[in-house]
Amino acid sequence: MDGNAGPPPLFHVSYPRRIPARAPENHVPAAPRFSLRWRHAVPTLVSDYFGLQGAGQADAKGHEFVSRMSQWFSEPNGPSAYEITTCIDETGRPATVVLAYWTSPSAHAAWSTGSSWRVWWEDAARPTEDVGYWREHLMCPYDRHETIYSDPNYRVGLARTPNSELVPITTNGYFGAARDRIPLSAVDDLQAPVRPSTPPARRTAGARLAVTIPHNLTVLRSGQFWHNSDPEQAADYEQNLRVKLDRGMDYLEQTPDSGCLYLRRLTNMSEDGTPRRETSIQAVFTSLADLESWAAVHETHLAIYRHAIAMKRRYGEHRDVVTWHELFVLPGGTLFEYLNCAENTGMLPYLPHLGRSPEFPLPHVGNTGSRPS
Amino acid sequence: MDGNAGPPPLFHVSYPRRIPARAPENHVPAAPRFSLRWRHAVPTLVSDYFGLQGAGQADAKGHEFVSRMSQWFSEPNGPSAYEITTCIDETGRPATVVLAYWTSPSAHAAWSTGSSWRVWWEDAARPTEDVGYWREHLMCPYDRHETIYSDPNYRVGLARTPNSELVPITTNGYFGAARDRIPLSAVDDLQAPVRPSTPPARRTAGARLAVTIPHNLTVLRSGQFWHNSDPEQAADYEQNLRVKLDRGMDYLEQTPDSGCLYLRRLTNMSEDGTPRRETSIQAVFTSLADLESWAAVHETHLAIYRHAIAMKRRYGEHRDVVTWHELFVLPGGTLFEYLNCAENTGMLPYLPHLGRSPEFPLPHVGNTGSRPS
Repeated sequence: MDGNAGPPPLFHVSYPRRIPARAPENHVPAAPRFSLRWRHAVPTLVSDYFGLQGAGQADAKGHEFVSRMSQWFSEPNGPSAYEITTCIDETGRPATVVLAYWTSPSAHAAWSTGSSWRVWWEDAARPTEDVGYWREHLMCPYDRHETIYSDPNYRVGLARTPNSELVPITTNGYFGAARDRIPLSAVDDLQAPVRPSTPPARRTAGARLAVTIPHNLTVLRSGQFWHNSDPEQAADYEQNLRVKLDRGMDYLEQTPDSGCLYLRRLTNMSEDGTPRRETSIQAVFTSLADLESWAAVHETHLAIYRHAIAMKRRYGEHRDVVTWHELFVLPGGTLFEYLNCAENTGMLPYLPHLGRSPEFPLPHVGNTGSRPS
Repeated sequence: MDGNAGPPPLFHVSYPRRIPARAPENHVPAAPRFSLRWRHAVPTLVSDYFGLQGAGQADAKGHEFVSRMSQWFSEPNGPSAYEITTCIDETGRPATVVLAYWTSPSAHAAWSTGSSWRVWWEDAARPTEDVGYWREHLMCPYDRHETIYSDPNYRVGLARTPNSELVPITTNGYFGAARDRIPLSAVDDLQAPVRPSTPPARRTAGARLAVTIPHNLTVLRSGQFWHNSDPEQAADYEQNLRVKLDRGMDYLEQTPDSGCLYLRRLTNMSEDGTPRRETSIQAVFTSLADLESWAAVHETHLAIYRHAIAMKRRYGEHRDVVTWHELFVLPGGTLFEYLNCAENTGMLPYLPHLGRSPEFPLPHVGNTGSRPS
């Protein structure tokens, strides 16, 4: 018996490299950073974004949506973490976006198919309201994700799931570091097979639609938290850093060749419906290479990076504005769904639309399968 | 420098067990068996089944289909292995089924989106012919698959992909062994979230349809090869073992509660269009537990197993009827597609149908993405 056995190792995946890492020789990061690890095996991570298009939290419809989602999340196999956010969305409409995380795709599948949310989602009335609904389902194998946090004590997004820890890393602080942190990048260059094209306009109002996401679609959620910051750092964030972040986002939105398909500027909401000093952007790119091009070249990303380093030098361990991101390079083929959404919502403008035959009854747990004669 | 470094280890994935293995204590297999391993990292395996419904190899349409698929497979990023088979399908129609394998999902995505097959598949004429076409796309993370072969020298299915080896195993020869060979089973019980239900009849003729496969859908390809067998063993196969196999398949087809949704009895074809003594069944189950129930309980599977053991004892290393299978427990959410197929084809009877809007132009490599205003 080994009295000094210690805790079991944290779960991680790595492959012998066929593709060289991007890290410069003898790299030393300018500032410490952290990544998320779990104490149990998590081969697949799930993040579902549930959207209500047309109502933010100033709207009774928005409150009702949040109240129902919270209720349904409490049913068996609900998410192990979730957050309520609002935004003015990519179509210019007020929106409520609920983000939910599972570390077991089986639990997610059970909830997604068997919960009261499913009954509500499948109801033929759903695309007939005066708001739109959507769900962007991110099913991400562990080896296609990475995370980074500037502080080991702040939990957000995936980091709110249980049995996890924030561990110090050195794979940060150089261009290409995010890719190096994605385990699959050791053996796969994660290229997009096609660029999305410009479609003709198509009717989406009143329709129940889905799109099949392309291979290596890259979804970034990148955020900042200054809710508990001392007044000086909070003011610096709001007056200096935020402006730089906004310019970076504007660039992505206004540059067709950036490869950024859409982005949403999300503000976390407290339970009482007031906004927190906790924001993030969801930005969806055709490929990781597109995200890297922006990060490597565009002035504003360099400015953000330099600002973060300067603030870390000024405040050291008292730096209490936290920045972080979670990044998913998704396998193609799963669905993003849009019910009665505007035609420029999410992935709708870029891909063929799949529509649902309305007559099919809801699959119900407990029915036995039977084959047609 | 270590002069005795030896070859790098074969790729495999395993997780610390949270779920006990099924292996009995001190288990010794009754006969040696082998599994497939690769010399490079293969985190995801892809098997696509391409079907032509309504024409076998006695039909010019069948020959044309095979000729075209072979041509398209030779384009960049085509499959690293493929086979031509025919059957009388689950609807009672003659069919040609081409099976293709990739060990890189990126290569698969590039071929699937950028090849001439894609142009042909997307053509609006496709669902208007006097035959049906379908594609069942199996994208299987390595940790959700397993393979077993009775002989290390015969390559079929996945085992025809390059840079791979057949290695001896002892995780065989007891009920539950297949599950134990699936790496993810150490941490996930692979349950199906719902049983499929019995739908109303829906029109499928002339339609371009897709279904989203349910979580943990289990696809088995199980085969036998006696093309090169000595006459005595070939006769034994044809007169004794095959009858037992057929009875097992009949049971699955005729028992609604078996959880077997459909099966196809495939015969491999030589290049000259003649059938080989090389057959397999593709059997699709709601869950691994359904497959196991049949294997554990049903008389015919026991009979098959006993027959295989007895023949091994009789012929020893001269046993030249080869039996094998490859098994995939798939993550839910990707599409199986059916163009102008009969309503009881494949997964069509069990799930909602998604239809395609016909006006969308083909995404083309080289277009730059541009966001709508």
